[in-house]
Parts: sequence; structure tokens; C-alpha cells
Amino acid sequence: MLEHGGNLRQATLRYGRADWLDLSTGINPEWYPAPAIAGNAWHRLPEPDPALVQAAQAYYGAPLMLPVAGTQAAIQALPCLRLPSRVVVAAPSYAEHAHHWAQHGHKLRQVPYDALDAAISECDVMVVVNPNNPTGATVSREKLLDWAAQLSARGGWLVVDEAFGDTALQASVAGGTPDGLIVLRSVGKFFGLAGLRLGFVAAQPALLDALADLLGPWTVSGPAQQVALAALRDTAWQERMRTQLRTSGQRLQSLLAAHGIRSSGSALFQWWPEAHAEAFHEHMARQGIWVRLFTNAARGIRLGLPPDEAGWQRLEHALTLWTKDKQ
Amino acid sequence: MLEHGGNLRQATLRYGRADWLDLSTGINPEWYPAPAIAGNAWHRLPEPDPALVQAAQAYYGAPLMLPVAGTQAAIQALPCLRLPSRVVVAAPSYAEHAHHWAQHGHKLRQVPYDALDAAISECDVMVVVNPNNPTGATVSREKLLDWAAQLSARGGWLVVDEAFGDTALQASVAGGTPDGLIVLRSVGKFFGLAGLRLGFVAAQPALLDALADLLGPWTVSGPAQQVALAALRDTAWQERMRTQLRTSGQRLQSLLAAHGIRSSGSALFQWWPEAHAEAFHEHMARQGIWVRLFTNAARGIRLGLPPDEAGWQRLEHALTLWTKDKQ
Repeated sequence: MLEHGGNLRQATLRYGRADWLDLSTGINPEWYPAPAIAGNAWHRLPEPDPALVQAAQAYYGAPLMLPVAGTQAAIQALPCLRLPSRVVVAAPSYAEHAHHWAQHGHKLRQVPYDALDAAISECDVMVVVNPNNPTGATVSREKLLDWAAQLSARGGWLVVDEAFGDTALQASVAGGTPDGLIVLRSVGKFFGLAGLRLGFVAAQPALLDALADLLGPWTVSGPAQQVALAALRDTAWQERMRTQLRTSGQRLQSLLAAHGIRSSGSALFQWWPEAHAEAFHEHMARQGIWVRLFTNAARGIRLGLPPDEAGWQRLEHALTLWTKDKQ
Repeated sequence: MLEHGGNLRQATLRYGRADWLDLSTGINPEWYPAPAIAGNAWHRLPEPDPALVQAAQAYYGAPLMLPVAGTQAAIQALPCLRLPSRVVVAAPSYAEHAHHWAQHGHKLRQVPYDALDAAISECDVMVVVNPNNPTGATVSREKLLDWAAQLSARGGWLVVDEAFGDTALQASVAGGTPDGLIVLRSVGKFFGLAGLRLGFVAAQPALLDALADLLGPWTVSGPAQQVALAALRDTAWQERMRTQLRTSGQRLQSLLAAHGIRSSGSALFQWWPEAHAEAFHEHMARQGIWVRLFTNAARGIRLGLPPDEAGWQRLEHALTLWTKDKQ
């Protein structure tokens, strides 16, 4: 299985401490306050709630959506829904996409973001994470729709993973999904509800039907549906959070810049190609801060947002020590 | 997608009433009282909790188990873990097994329970639900272990789905899983927690590793892990419930017998090959009782347990009306 952030058990085992400031994910540290769960939500087989789908369609502005057990479920399932194809996955990026497309007989190429345009004519499926995790690279809405049209014309797909798209609404292509365009959205990141295991897929009905068939019944737990329904409908919380996260993201970028680090990313995380990535990871771990070390294509460090002022101070202190060490 | 019990939305749409006595599943109507959920269980990516696996191993008496998002997740995944094989699925039974084995290039045969012994020599994989849903048919522990040994000797599998096995512990083969034996357990039925989406698979480590890889990370939500941990550790509740469910199951069988219906099943449901199955289903629906109608191989009716004394009375009244109609 691939390595991911949020693996605090591993951190605790390796470093013998449990008081981590966990910055290893890009999940909003201020999670949506889950309402009390109706007792029988744990009890009943979780029928799909039409109200949840309606709330998601309103929030994402998408005409048709399928709830799935986290974006991860869709990432794993989509490669099973096509005969062997020529697949381009934008790179470096979230590693689960390439991992699963490679496992189902497809011919996979990983292509840098700035070479995607040239690759369209040579593939049947293209997968783009927008904004990208971890680099923050983006592709314009117009470009994506153009690629989708080109691919669709020959029966291809453009898969756009907008897991981190909630703070840059105008960039989303979920608002209308022509044939061949498949958009993945995550409830976990922006709402800080990664424990729910809930995401949505926007696409044409035939594809959503095939995906639902493959994923089978009762994929999203009853309580997860209840919590998400409240979160997706709470537009006041969403607006406040969008502003707050943009401010926090800029604060993180500025803090890093003040320590000589030029980073990019999204409102929820910053990333940079740290030359001494292992040493930085080790330094932070010894300060009780768990960051995400990337050692493969996207070699570098990703930092999520601290959950509170004490966390910001702790991060600043650790960065200051790191800068001193490097001088 | 196949039809299942618990589909109250469909019942409500078809009959225009919402006050259903839902007897359409085999889920314990008295669910384990879910403890309050720690707020950040919704927030964090749900790392697998070693304590949950330990609690499951203790409860099921199995040396090694993998948590999965409901037995359903394992049912869907197992057919992907073998090259095309000759597969026998015991029939009639829970339809999802045959449905998924048929979808992955395997050569599927459905074989009646009393002909399974003779079929062992002619298959690579056999799937048995024990006790069976909906008929209640059982296969002895000794017989299952013998079949597993025969299949394993030529690289085959015996898959035993013990989703309804919690009230007949001595029949379980989860207690030691030699090569080739794969046992599925469900937290949803006995504990009445179908909304959790949690089950366990017992098997040899190599198979569990392959299954975990296929299912991917974070399959079980954080809150589901917390609720299940409490339920699996609560031996007092489990003992009380085992006695209570055995009594209730016998009461259901006796009630049906008093109305001329000879049924079989488990502590959690009764089933019979009703000659006028559609008419019975319609009669009960008009009384506000939602039962499970089987129109395929297991043609007949399945009834779960009423949740309270009022439910028992309502069922008895409806059965009396049915008997009168038939005279």
C-alpha cells in the first residue's frame, strides 16, 4: 500500500512520542462540527439519501452526482470501467491515481503538468489533479474543457480530481459534465471530515450508473450521510471557512518565505522541493511536528495548516531552528 | 444492482405510507447502543486501529482478521484476487456472491446445499453461506474443514460467509483458518449496526495482505471503528443478546407455525417457500409490514424480528388476516 500523510501511529512508533502537531495532511484542521447522530443511523442499512445528493449538487453546482466512500473509492474503481487504454496521469501528483491505473492492464505514462497539452492527442484517458496535490499546480477551466472535448470525441475520458477545489470555486469544471468528463470531489479536505469516507463523482448518467454498479450497495455509512448533509447545506460555515482558509494558506506561505522557503500549494497546504527533505522531516519530527516527506517524483515537503495559535508558534519555532542549523 | 431488504424508501414510494414495521432484513432490531463519538473521529483520516483488530480476534476467536467496509466489500473483492476459476456457489443463497463471481471471468455454477459435497472435486472455489440466508441451511464445521482441505490441496479456496453466525458459535470455522479457508463475519447483523459498514475477514496473512491492497486505505470510517470497538468488547451485552435472539427466533418460528407456516432460518430471521409469495408480500404491505419477497431461486418470504411487543402484535394480527383470507 502507498504511504500517505496522517499516519500518526507510524510516527508514534518511530519516535516514541504521542504529542504530535500533525501537519502531514492537507485536511482542514477546523472540522465541521458534526451534529448528533440519530441512533438508528448506526442501525439501518444505509440507503442512499436523495437529500444528500441534492445538497451535493447544490454545493458543487453539478447537475448529477454519485456519493462514494471517499474520492479513493472512485480512484480505485474508474480504471476497472475501461478496456485497456493509453492513460496519461499528470505528475508529480497524488500517487493513488497512477498506482490504480497501472494495475488494470492500461498503458500508463506520467507527464509533467506543463507537457499535458501536447500529450492529449496521444492518450485515451487523462487524469489531472486540480489544484494539484502536493505542488499546487493548476490548469485553467477553459483548457480542461477543451481537453475533455478532444478526448470525448474519440471515446476518451478526462478525469479531474478537485479534492482540494473548495476554496477556488471558479476553477471547477463540475458545473456541467459533458460526455467523457469525470470530476471527483472530496468532503474530507475542506470540511475537515476525512473520517467520514465520503466524496462525490460528477459525470454523465451512464458512467455514474456503471460506477454505482461496480461499487455495490451501501457504500457510505448512515451517520456519514447525516453529517455530510448538514455540512453541505451550511453555506454560512462554508463562506466563513473559505475566507479563513485563504488567509491561513497565505499565512503559511508567508511564514515559510520568512524562513527562506519558496513554496506553492493551495489554501490547505504548502509544498516545496526541499533539497534536504529527509533532514527537514527528521528535524521537524524531533520537534514533535509531523510533516509529509515526499521521496519520489514530487521530492520535497508538504505542510498542512496548524490547528491553533500554539501550533503556529510551534511551527515558527521549529522553522527558526532549522534555518539556524542551515546557516 | 440487486434488490435487498431494508429498502424502505422504495416501500414508501410504492405504497404511500411511511409508518412501516420493517421486517425485510435479518438485522437485529435492538442495536448495540453506540457510544458518543470523539469529535475528531470524523476529522482524521481513519488509520486502522490495532485495538479494533484485537477485539475482533478475541470476539470471533480468530488468530488474524482484516476489517473491511462490510462483508459486502469482501464479497466484491475476492473474485478479483484469482485467475479465472471453476466456482461453485451454494444456492439458493445471498445473491451478491454469485453476482460478483460471475463478473470476473470465472466459470460459475450454483449448486444446492445437499449437492455441495459431490461438487467439491469439480471446482477450485466454493462459496457457502453458513447458516444460509435466507433458508437457514447449515453445513457442519467438520464438513467445511474437510472441504477446505481438499480445495486447498490444489490451490483452491473455501469461502464461508458467517454473516449470521453470531448465535451459533460452535458452528464457526473462523477459529483457525488453514490455507485456502476464507471466513467472512459481519458486525451489522448480530449487533444491529448495519449502518456502520464494518465486517471482518479471517484468512491466512498472504490473502489478507492481497485483500487489503486491493481494498485500499481508509476503508472503515473512524466513528465506525469506535462504535465497533465498544460492541466487540461488551461480552455482557453479547451474552444477553445471544439468549434473547434465540428466544425471539423461536417465537417467530412458533408464531408462523401457529398460522400454518412451516419455516426455517436463524435466530435473526425465518424463511419459507411461500406458494403465494407475491400475494403475501402485498397483503403484509397493505398492513404496513415490509417483508422480503424472494422471486428467484429461493422463491418465498423472509421475515426478520419485530423490534417490540407492538410489532409482534401487529405481525400476529396481519398473519391472522392472511390465514382467514386463505381459508
